[in-house]
Amino acid sequence: MRDAVQVVVVGSIGLDTIETPEAKVADVLGGSCSYACAAASFFAPTGMVGVVGREDFGAEHRALYDRFGIDTAGLQVRAGRTFRWSGVYEQDMVNRRTLLTELNVFEHFSPDLPAAYRRASFLLLGNIAPELQLHVLDQAEGARFVAADTMNLWINTEREALMRLIGRVNLLTVNDEEARMLTDCHNLRRCAETIRAWGPDHVVIKKGEHGAMLFSGDGIFLAPAYPVERLYDPTGAGDCFAGACIGALAAQGAVDGGTLRHALLAGATVASFGVESFSLERLASLSRAEIDTRLERLRDMLRV
Amino acid sequence: MRDAVQVVVVGSIGLDTIETPEAKVADVLGGSCSYACAAASFFAPTGMVGVVGREDFGAEHRALYDRFGIDTAGLQVRAGRTFRWSGVYEQDMVNRRTLLTELNVFEHFSPDLPAAYRRASFLLLGNIAPELQLHVLDQAEGARFVAADTMNLWINTEREALMRLIGRVNLLTVNDEEARMLTDCHNLRRCAETIRAWGPDHVVIKKGEHGAMLFSGDGIFLAPAYPVERLYDPTGAGDCFAGACIGALAAQGAVDGGTLRHALLAGATVASFGVESFSLERLASLSRAEIDTRLERLRDMLRV
Repeated sequence: MRDAVQVVVVGSIGLDTIETPEAKVADVLGGSCSYACAAASFFAPTGMVGVVGREDFGAEHRALYDRFGIDTAGLQVRAGRTFRWSGVYEQDMVNRRTLLTELNVFEHFSPDLPAAYRRASFLLLGNIAPELQLHVLDQAEGARFVAADTMNLWINTEREALMRLIGRVNLLTVNDEEARMLTDCHNLRRCAETIRAWGPDHVVIKKGEHGAMLFSGDGIFLAPAYPVERLYDPTGAGDCFAGACIGALAAQGAVDGGTLRHALLAGATVASFGVESFSLERLASLSRAEIDTRLERLRDMLRV
Repeated sequence: MRDAVQVVVVGSIGLDTIETPEAKVADVLGGSCSYACAAASFFAPTGMVGVVGREDFGAEHRALYDRFGIDTAGLQVRAGRTFRWSGVYEQDMVNRRTLLTELNVFEHFSPDLPAAYRRASFLLLGNIAPELQLHVLDQAEGARFVAADTMNLWINTEREALMRLIGRVNLLTVNDEEARMLTDCHNLRRCAETIRAWGPDHVVIKKGEHGAMLFSGDGIFLAPAYPVERLYDPTGAGDCFAGACIGALAAQGAVDGGTLRHALLAGATVASFGVESFSLERLASLSRAEIDTRLERLRDMLRV
């Protein structure tokens, strides 16, 4: 029998076609839910809530989730094709252009939590429509700590629902641009103060290769990104970061200044492995010992 | 009698006209030498090597240097006008457009070290033509630790002289864009390795509001920028950073992994005060106690 699910992640599951200056892959498993679950699974028993299409989601994709020991009781398989995204990265590996987005089965996604997931203590609401995030939150009766991610699309088009969501979560993750858009303010400290006043005890502002900033009641933590030697594909880095964060929090049991700081470094570490390949490839061969070694190196890079 | 000069800084001295989205000032004292000397002066007796024009460099400007206790024996006053720079910052307070550059007396600057400066142990070669930096280095007989800054202009136009300089310094500071241009490589770790192979034991890659990375024989240190609550004018931030770094190294006496890391945090701290006003205004009212308090806060933001 599996361990009871401690971390539940809802988000998108997609088949991605990605081109970087150095390589290209087609139809590889991706989406915020895939990346975040894989990352969280290194730290705590993790269950996924997502939807895929029967036409193109195959045994090899499910086998990949199994490899991480991800609980797929909350994975819905529907008639049709899986969500698809296609994009091209520029030379700087930061800016990217979306070539195609096909919602497919994702268009009518109604996330439902299996009974066993409702007792999980840690919930990560990956970047999907705020109404869907709220719907999941309503079902998560046992959730003691709820983190949510969002994006510019929802800030622009679903602000009212997003504000209701923000008022109900413990931690919000946004990137710097989104933080500024959400609060109509440039200074990131002031952005974070504004968001914290709306409800969340903790705000994490992600800055990609420049790390992340955690704003909590007990101060600010400046988490660096691990300086990778070879950046292969940045897709999913933010989701790996968030997934490993919540997994590391669940593993530590308590959420406080110390465990949060540790969780952010764990997030940065797993994200740095994730970008060393396309899709979940590097994560699939990653060991906990490799994570711990790199995490210790990252700590050394902060030591004064 | 003054204390013997321990830190010598050569660089530009200018009268700047600066426009930000919120304010504008004309003909304020600036230049890499002014900012770096002011910053270094909080930590160790500092002497400046620069040139100004008799027509427009007034008693109020010299009084400002005196306020920091900067030794001005190496300050040349020549017939004509002082170097002038004028620029406008965009809304993001990062990108800026140069409106005007007038070299004036700076055009024929030949930096000479007063005898007392030649015995100083710490030398900061601020961003001027590499041939001039080399000329100063030739005179600095007592220098035990030499740091140099440079810019894209010299990388493009004076590469051969710049490479000779790089081969003779202990520490090179460049920003991320310059590091990439200099080494024709995108990954910052590899940029730093390449530069270290050319000579410098230590390479500092500056990333503005995202902090700085120190690459040394004993590893990498990821120094954050202090998250300012009010960014008023970023001009000179990199020079304050470098000046405070070398001042803090001089104060500690030894250069090793530990003192360098501390020096980078001191640099980030003084730079964060510098950007709270135009010109040297905030630095002129700054106390060592304020620096120490904020430095301790910055350390807290790194603690895991």
